[in-house]
Amino acid sequence: MKAEIFSIGTEILLGEILDSNAKHIASELANMGIDVFYKTTVGDNEKRLLDAIDIAYKRADIIISTGGLGPTDDDLTKETFAKYFNKELITDEASLKNLKEYFKNEEMPLSNLKQADIPKGAIPIENKNGTAPGIFIEENGKIAIILPGPPKECIPMFENSVKPMLKKYTNKVLVSKSLNLCGIGESKASEIIKDMLNTSKNPTIAPYANNNEMRFRVTASGKTKEEATELLKPTVDKLYDIFNEYIYGEDEERLASVIVNKLIKNNMTIATAESCTGGLLASSIIDVASASKVFLNGVISYSNESKVYELNVCKEDLEKYGAVSKEVAIQMAEGIKNKSNSTIGIATTGIAGPTGGTKEKPVGLVYIAIAVDGKETIYKELMLKGNRQKVREKTVNICFSELLKIIK
Amino acid sequence: MKAEIFSIGTEILLGEILDSNAKHIASELANMGIDVFYKTTVGDNEKRLLDAIDIAYKRADIIISTGGLGPTDDDLTKETFAKYFNKELITDEASLKNLKEYFKNEEMPLSNLKQADIPKGAIPIENKNGTAPGIFIEENGKIAIILPGPPKECIPMFENSVKPMLKKYTNKVLVSKSLNLCGIGESKASEIIKDMLNTSKNPTIAPYANNNEMRFRVTASGKTKEEATELLKPTVDKLYDIFNEYIYGEDEERLASVIVNKLIKNNMTIATAESCTGGLLASSIIDVASASKVFLNGVISYSNESKVYELNVCKEDLEKYGAVSKEVAIQMAEGIKNKSNSTIGIATTGIAGPTGGTKEKPVGLVYIAIAVDGKETIYKELMLKGNRQKVREKTVNICFSELLKIIK
Repeated sequence: MKAEIFSIGTEILLGEILDSNAKHIASELANMGIDVFYKTTVGDNEKRLLDAIDIAYKRADIIISTGGLGPTDDDLTKETFAKYFNKELITDEASLKNLKEYFKNEEMPLSNLKQADIPKGAIPIENKNGTAPGIFIEENGKIAIILPGPPKECIPMFENSVKPMLKKYTNKVLVSKSLNLCGIGESKASEIIKDMLNTSKNPTIAPYANNNEMRFRVTASGKTKEEATELLKPTVDKLYDIFNEYIYGEDEERLASVIVNKLIKNNMTIATAESCTGGLLASSIIDVASASKVFLNGVISYSNESKVYELNVCKEDLEKYGAVSKEVAIQMAEGIKNKSNSTIGIATTGIAGPTGGTKEKPVGLVYIAIAVDGKETIYKELMLKGNRQKVREKTVNICFSELLKIIK
Repeated sequence: MKAEIFSIGTEILLGEILDSNAKHIASELANMGIDVFYKTTVGDNEKRLLDAIDIAYKRADIIISTGGLGPTDDDLTKETFAKYFNKELITDEASLKNLKEYFKNEEMPLSNLKQADIPKGAIPIENKNGTAPGIFIEENGKIAIILPGPPKECIPMFENSVKPMLKKYTNKVLVSKSLNLCGIGESKASEIIKDMLNTSKNPTIAPYANNNEMRFRVTASGKTKEEATELLKPTVDKLYDIFNEYIYGEDEERLASVIVNKLIKNNMTIATAESCTGGLLASSIIDVASASKVFLNGVISYSNESKVYELNVCKEDLEKYGAVSKEVAIQMAEGIKNKSNSTIGIATTGIAGPTGGTKEKPVGLVYIAIAVDGKETIYKELMLKGNRQKVREKTVNICFSELLKIIK
């Protein structure tokens, strides 16, 4: 069974709104094992919509459309599908009743009346959040499911009515698991399991990268959920074997919250001393709701003076080695830990750019240091690429990977 | 001239990410007077992509595609367009140089090498934010413009390179100016000029909101740049008259950089004391490259203890009024100013949620305070809606609007 998603309307075509309906529907169909090979966006135009329907039914069995069911003259989705299937429009009594109920406290504009019309023989789909019912048409083995455009109406209708309708057209169940990695890039990780990526068909393995993190999504299909889950397991285990040191969590788990939760579990607290990251490290930790249990204190020590009076960095070392040096990073980490009486002190100092670099200390040079109670303070020298924002984001990400190694 | 937008990739087809590239490109093409009648989304599949190209060139002259230029084997956009146009792929030396420059500090995975290949006779489009160049192909009156998928790469390339390339295919010149506002919401601002928004055709006025800021974009079209600029002026002047107190800049000017530049100009320095914003305020200032000239020091004082030892907040007041109070906010602002010897000290304290609220002090209650040399310290009580992240972002935005009033 192949489906195609239609997003209909001039607003969506001209980029005035983001197409969140199509995203939702595509993702749900994929989970149900209904193939989606194309999505088409077309304006409110009868001729072009008819052409698009024609093309779509040559390559798919189901069209799920959103948009173009409003009360105004330029809304013509329903009329066009009716024309395509050669059906007249008739008033649907249940939809008319809903419509009147919707307008019980105010006068209904006459133009809304046409929203109760559906093609003869079609099944109306109730809309609890708006005035336009959805429509289900099945004819000569082709199915059209026509939904309104506003996501507040469309998505509940898809979830509550369309999904149950589609169940009989699929006998596959898909189960996915994401393994979230840090400390390794998408290219490098994919290179390591190149053969697996290319040959694995069920389950499939797909790499994704965003915001300096990466994940592998493993997806298996089976006749039942149990069968799909069973198929998933060996591949997931194998990925754990290969990438054990990089995997920090699964599915929706984010790096910062994994760290905060591990700190809570280990009864540890943290304090930050930031130069080049300028608050981004602390902010990324505090983004996690339970951070207040572990985050004690932070200093954004941007000037040399404040490194001395806030963090007790030795003035002579600052002059001798410079603010961007392993010596200063280590003293910053120890300074914030001692001052805040935390288990962990973490520090960053570097040249985020675009200016401020020299031949010896170029833009992108960053030192991070982590001081832990009862352990020797560690440091790491980094050479990072990208603009100011990227250098700062990557530094925070590497701080997190290093923290994870310590508290894992 | 008709264009069609292609969004290529399994991720986008299966609804795993929103298609923000297509939204941006469609909206900009509409502004340039280039018709877009269809958008097509297709997965990383040669046969289906070839079919879609075939269909598109029957109804359009230009295909602008995004996605599928990554280093892995499943990325095949470039290869498929090359096949369609019957052209071999050759190494583009400039792109190869960029690629090597990008990886100068680390080993380049071998798979990345293919990103420097372009179809013979095509024009590469420089990518300053990633490894895949874009590609411009013109052949038998058909044009393909192939861009990478990540919006951070795609959108700057579209703006800086593709738009100038497309100029010759349109005989309209569009001139836009954005007026950037802070301290007023999109709905409220739009309501004030409702009639103007509805009736103004050339220039058009479009409101946009993102990240707690809003802007009006005024766009005029004319036969020449001069004509369009002339048409723009009266509307821009009128908006300045109406929204003078809210407009902080034009076009690409961002609020944080306007503030940093004004601080530099006024010879002022700043220090931050953050509780609920947790480093986000400092980080947003330090995001601006010249921030090191004005930002002296920051403290993220998350625990009550650190408010005392870092900011000299009176312990009795902390107990009497609580950490989230105007009294504590004021003392935090004055404490950080005195400690850092800065012209301005700014402080935030509040309940970002999701927990921690009480009936008297609910989630969303935030106090900000600003201490300025030689002036009385001001404070502001806010009741903010939204999740933890939103409360923190809105607080930072309001800090900026208040700062702007002081240094304007």
